[in-house]
Amino acid sequence: MATQISRRNAIQSLLAMAGGAAVYEGVRSVMNTPAFGGQSFNAGTLGQAHAALGNWVYLTPQKLGGGTHCCDMGTGKTLAWISYWNYGDTCPISHHLAAYPSPDPYKGFEFINSTQGGKNVMIYGLPTRIQSRGILDRYGQGNNIYRVYFDGQSMNLIENVAETTGMGLGVHTVIFPDGKGFAGADGQKDVCAFFDRPGLTEKTKVQMAFRGDWVPNNKNDLDKTWMEGGTLRLVRLSPATETGKFELEGTRGNKIDWEMVPMAEHLVWTGRLPGEDPRGLTGLDAVVHHPGNRYSALILRMPSAALIVDRTTWEPVCCLHNPEGSPGNLPIKKVSNSPDTWEVRFEDCKCVGHEAGFSPDGKNFTMMNNIQQNNMAVFDTSDADPRKWKKITWVKDPKWVGDYPSPFHLCFSMDGSKMFVSVLSPKPANSASVVVDTKTWQIIKKFENIGPDCQTMAVTYDGKYVLQIFSGFQRLSTGVFIYTQDTLEPVGYLPNFGGHHDCVIVPRDTRELLNSRCTTL
Amino acid sequence: MATQISRRNAIQSLLAMAGGAAVYEGVRSVMNTPAFGGQSFNAGTLGQAHAALGNWVYLTPQKLGGGTHCCDMGTGKTLAWISYWNYGDTCPISHHLAAYPSPDPYKGFEFINSTQGGKNVMIYGLPTRIQSRGILDRYGQGNNIYRVYFDGQSMNLIENVAETTGMGLGVHTVIFPDGKGFAGADGQKDVCAFFDRPGLTEKTKVQMAFRGDWVPNNKNDLDKTWMEGGTLRLVRLSPATETGKFELEGTRGNKIDWEMVPMAEHLVWTGRLPGEDPRGLTGLDAVVHHPGNRYSALILRMPSAALIVDRTTWEPVCCLHNPEGSPGNLPIKKVSNSPDTWEVRFEDCKCVGHEAGFSPDGKNFTMMNNIQQNNMAVFDTSDADPRKWKKITWVKDPKWVGDYPSPFHLCFSMDGSKMFVSVLSPKPANSASVVVDTKTWQIIKKFENIGPDCQTMAVTYDGKYVLQIFSGFQRLSTGVFIYTQDTLEPVGYLPNFGGHHDCVIVPRDTRELLNSRCTTL
Repeated sequence: MATQISRRNAIQSLLAMAGGAAVYEGVRSVMNTPAFGGQSFNAGTLGQAHAALGNWVYLTPQKLGGGTHCCDMGTGKTLAWISYWNYGDTCPISHHLAAYPSPDPYKGFEFINSTQGGKNVMIYGLPTRIQSRGILDRYGQGNNIYRVYFDGQSMNLIENVAETTGMGLGVHTVIFPDGKGFAGADGQKDVCAFFDRPGLTEKTKVQMAFRGDWVPNNKNDLDKTWMEGGTLRLVRLSPATETGKFELEGTRGNKIDWEMVPMAEHLVWTGRLPGEDPRGLTGLDAVVHHPGNRYSALILRMPSAALIVDRTTWEPVCCLHNPEGSPGNLPIKKVSNSPDTWEVRFEDCKCVGHEAGFSPDGKNFTMMNNIQQNNMAVFDTSDADPRKWKKITWVKDPKWVGDYPSPFHLCFSMDGSKMFVSVLSPKPANSASVVVDTKTWQIIKKFENIGPDCQTMAVTYDGKYVLQIFSGFQRLSTGVFIYTQDTLEPVGYLPNFGGHHDCVIVPRDTRELLNSRCTTL
Repeated sequence: MATQISRRNAIQSLLAMAGGAAVYEGVRSVMNTPAFGGQSFNAGTLGQAHAALGNWVYLTPQKLGGGTHCCDMGTGKTLAWISYWNYGDTCPISHHLAAYPSPDPYKGFEFINSTQGGKNVMIYGLPTRIQSRGILDRYGQGNNIYRVYFDGQSMNLIENVAETTGMGLGVHTVIFPDGKGFAGADGQKDVCAFFDRPGLTEKTKVQMAFRGDWVPNNKNDLDKTWMEGGTLRLVRLSPATETGKFELEGTRGNKIDWEMVPMAEHLVWTGRLPGEDPRGLTGLDAVVHHPGNRYSALILRMPSAALIVDRTTWEPVCCLHNPEGSPGNLPIKKVSNSPDTWEVRFEDCKCVGHEAGFSPDGKNFTMMNNIQQNNMAVFDTSDADPRKWKKITWVKDPKWVGDYPSPFHLCFSMDGSKMFVSVLSPKPANSASVVVDTKTWQIIKKFENIGPDCQTMAVTYDGKYVLQIFSGFQRLSTGVFIYTQDTLEPVGYLPNFGGHHDCVIVPRDTRELLNSRCTTL
């Protein structure tokens, strides 16, 4: 045992010294010596079923579970996990995440994990004393952006980007197509920001940040605030001179007190989602990137629009408008230099929108139209100039009427021939995963009744399997439903603990990254 | 959709009214209507591998993960989960649990979940600010005993027994063989208590409570406090008259500041585990029950002993002493009535001990001897009078030398012919699960290198599979390793998120309960 213990100490010393990835090769070689095992018992039926899935590291946040874990799909073991309350976060809603590419995820990878917080824990009917105990006040405000590094053994919290930059954004986090940074956003604050990717021991910087504000045509009737059109103002944000930070940590800057859960935009215009400025809400809760790595789309839920920004100039270019019957590409005009402010005019907003994404080949963009419409707008985005991107069709289903069932998240097959779409029904009903032919934009297969609240999907990068996570908003049955990507046959379920809003297979390079949390939400 | 929503509301109303199990039948019948799904996609290889395991609900606490979840083994889905920070517990170390029998666990079951807290979060080398932020002070003291009810849909926290009774015990929880209550214990406080089982909407009461205190022969040398023998005092505890409670919530009553992790008893006698009263420590951290439902064994780690209490009279009977070379059955003598106090004299304590249990047929008791000895004492407990229970042999292995590898947890096959023992190696090395023939008490099979920190096992009640949970103390790879109970062949792994200290298959009746967290730890 002395040998084992001294080896362990050696590993710990190596890790303590480690500032980069060079050390991991050494750690793995020690770990693979017989003293540390490596023998496997996966010869049985369950082991064989796992081995057939291939060696993928499947990373999923737990939402109200408060942490994130990753599964080694090829063995069925949990590779590692992190629980944010361990670090003194008293209300850690592990919300969305994205992983940077790593040549061998089993040896190490880095991911970005946003957390909600504050009153979002109160919206699921839990009989909890967390608010009356004052636990939400100081270290429970959430909107943290955790950088976590899996070092081949454990997940380690290496930075809270919200604390470093003052930019507290609790919703989607999406890696740039070159893997050199990420975008974050928050639909309660209407703020998005673009962050660089520093070394493991360095601190993150904000490259650029914007806020969206809505100026309605009808300023009297809350229920017509968006429906009757208005002006979207995009404002460039700067850090406070004195602190060098954005002063948007925690709940600071919230226009509404908690998130609009899917298909809950109507709570805003019916006056049932209070806050500082519901009438100014755009619902800017995400950014997705065109695979060309120049343009990013700022996703605006209230007008169902996607504002395209050029990341080489940090100037907005145009605005895609998704509803059926609305113009597809709206111009944007600069109206002020102090601060930089641009405006987009909307004649009307026929519906709200939500999740969105580009196909990994860059030829299409799609976004969900919800509530008043219930379809997916499809754009042709093959032109080099986003101002020429055109709305070409809508994915529809005779069942998509009323609020539910409603198309929700999307991803694409590795060859681009299929789009996979989760279709949400309200809990405790089970949700679905459907398959769309990207030549005809018709639904060709449905897996219904998978589990409550199907959220994002991931495709194994060998193009063999689709992983559909389902979660429960937030405390029903959960897991991963797996089906074959090409033959569209069910494979089975894997357990997955928590109320999952997202999932990612850790990509090994920027090519795989394009089918990960980069081009789609 | 209107139909679904009204059905959902109906379910919620039903649940709101529910005080007992009668309503669940109704809920399930609604849930099984086509509108709520029920269709399954488990035809694939993974689905078939799960189906072969059978319909068992596998319940596991996450330790530093902060919650508990259960897996539907037959489908591979996570059935439900709970995360205690959601309820305002700022340091919830979900430690041990036990489930009451339920005729159909899929429709509902109740379980008891102890939590550690306070400084225990600090002992795993996490670079955390949880202490400096003051988060451990008020709602992070832990030692909660949560009663949780799974209602067929979600896990619901129905009572914090520590708050109700003032009895805050954070370690093993073990159901009585008749399913009518449970025992809890805490090795930092040296306190154990026996609780009744009230109705779902009623509050728990303490039936009886005891504290163990050590009075060493050698009062000068800390390192000889136990080795040179001494007197074990057992004291009957009563609630404070004014409050009606035991005033032992949170860290109140701790003799040592954090737990003795496995094989860490030497930290106490070498002065490296501080606290109010390390010299008075007995390490009373568990109770297990003889299946006859009359006698329970109070497990004392420091002297490696098990004090037998008659639960019909609440009087102690005798004390089993486990080390090789020590007398096997020590007398106990009442020395005071105010409060009731009994004493057991130990000539010496040749080693410390830890996990223990009775065979479900009641014929044997076994307990691990650790550190100075490294074996399992086996007692013949077939006599109706515990004073006649005899130490008959030791389970040994040529590899069990020094501190590690060390036998840790145990359970028995359904037919009693085999005992399964987890064998701990220090992280990050992988631990093992070995199989002992209960006729010869010889090891007949070893599964080595399963994963870090193999903890408890569960046996499917059809006698087909052994589930060996492995956890990582506390943040390495985790999962469940499954092998066949009779043919002892590997089946494979299931992911399981968190640092698991325990696991239970929810029993369906008191017969199955005997192979659950009742007779063994």
